[in-house]
Amino acid sequence: MSADAPAPAGRGVPRRLDRDEIDALLHAQRVARLGCHADGETYVVPLIYAYDGSSVVAATTEGRKISMLRSNPRACVEVDEYDADGRGSWWSVIAQGVYEELTGAEIAPALDLLRDRFARAAGRTAEPRAVGPDVVVFRIRLAEVSGRAVDR
Amino acid sequence: MSADAPAPAGRGVPRRLDRDEIDALLHAQRVARLGCHADGETYVVPLIYAYDGSSVVAATTEGRKISMLRSNPRACVEVDEYDADGRGSWWSVIAQGVYEELTGAEIAPALDLLRDRFARAAGRTAEPRAVGPDVVVFRIRLAEVSGRAVDR
Repeated sequence: MSADAPAPAGRGVPRRLDRDEIDALLHAQRVARLGCHADGETYVVPLIYAYDGSSVVAATTEGRKISMLRSNPRACVEVDEYDADGRGSWWSVIAQGVYEELTGAEIAPALDLLRDRFARAAGRTAEPRAVGPDVVVFRIRLAEVSGRAVDR
Repeated sequence: MSADAPAPAGRGVPRRLDRDEIDALLHAQRVARLGCHADGETYVVPLIYAYDGSSVVAATTEGRKISMLRSNPRACVEVDEYDADGRGSWWSVIAQGVYEELTGAEIAPALDLLRDRFARAAGRTAEPRAVGPDVVVFRIRLAEVSGRAVDR
């Protein structure tokens, strides 16, 4: 839409995203912000992910977020896009989810999903890590997903 | 840096940001992700903010995040920039902080900071709200700030 195009109806008024719009945003983005909480502390980290339609899948190294998620698997996943149209429009999805560490035969399909996602992606924002001894492959199974947008 | 320029030293290896780099990122960005936690639930939301050198300042309407922050003022602020150079480099700052609701004479300087920030900003990503009866002006006073980057 050009800067001179008419404003959409409801311009500037927050609206709820429907399920298709939520899935589209989760498929389109590559960096989520993951919120976890343990021992009285809340921690938010960027998370390079792929979306399989019901979970956010990621591979990372052992560290603070993994130890927190093992302690408390209830997590929040937030994905957004700001100003992609140059008009200040934004979309945001927030989901409550549960951390599940992948083991055995679950690991290969998850890594395939990540490889496929980032092979399709333009640019080099994110490349899944090679699996090494300190790499953890996991998913956050999403529930209570909601999305909002402001169109300008 | 052009795509053909030599890679910087330490390319692809995470490094810690120093205090000046942390402040530069906090001043440059306009959208933080705020993590809060109450009643067993962690919640991450995008937050349009201005940085005053020690706190993230914002104005928002009453709602879920404000009620959670009033219940538990310990919060996490995450700010990042992905792929600004088209090479996949990223910077991220994560801070633990404390929610402080502004009242009385504290409100006007905070709104001035927000107006100044967004008057300087190119584009229309974010415009501070006008103050109305349901608007809450607050800061998250940052402590335990750390930053990481990967240069590619």
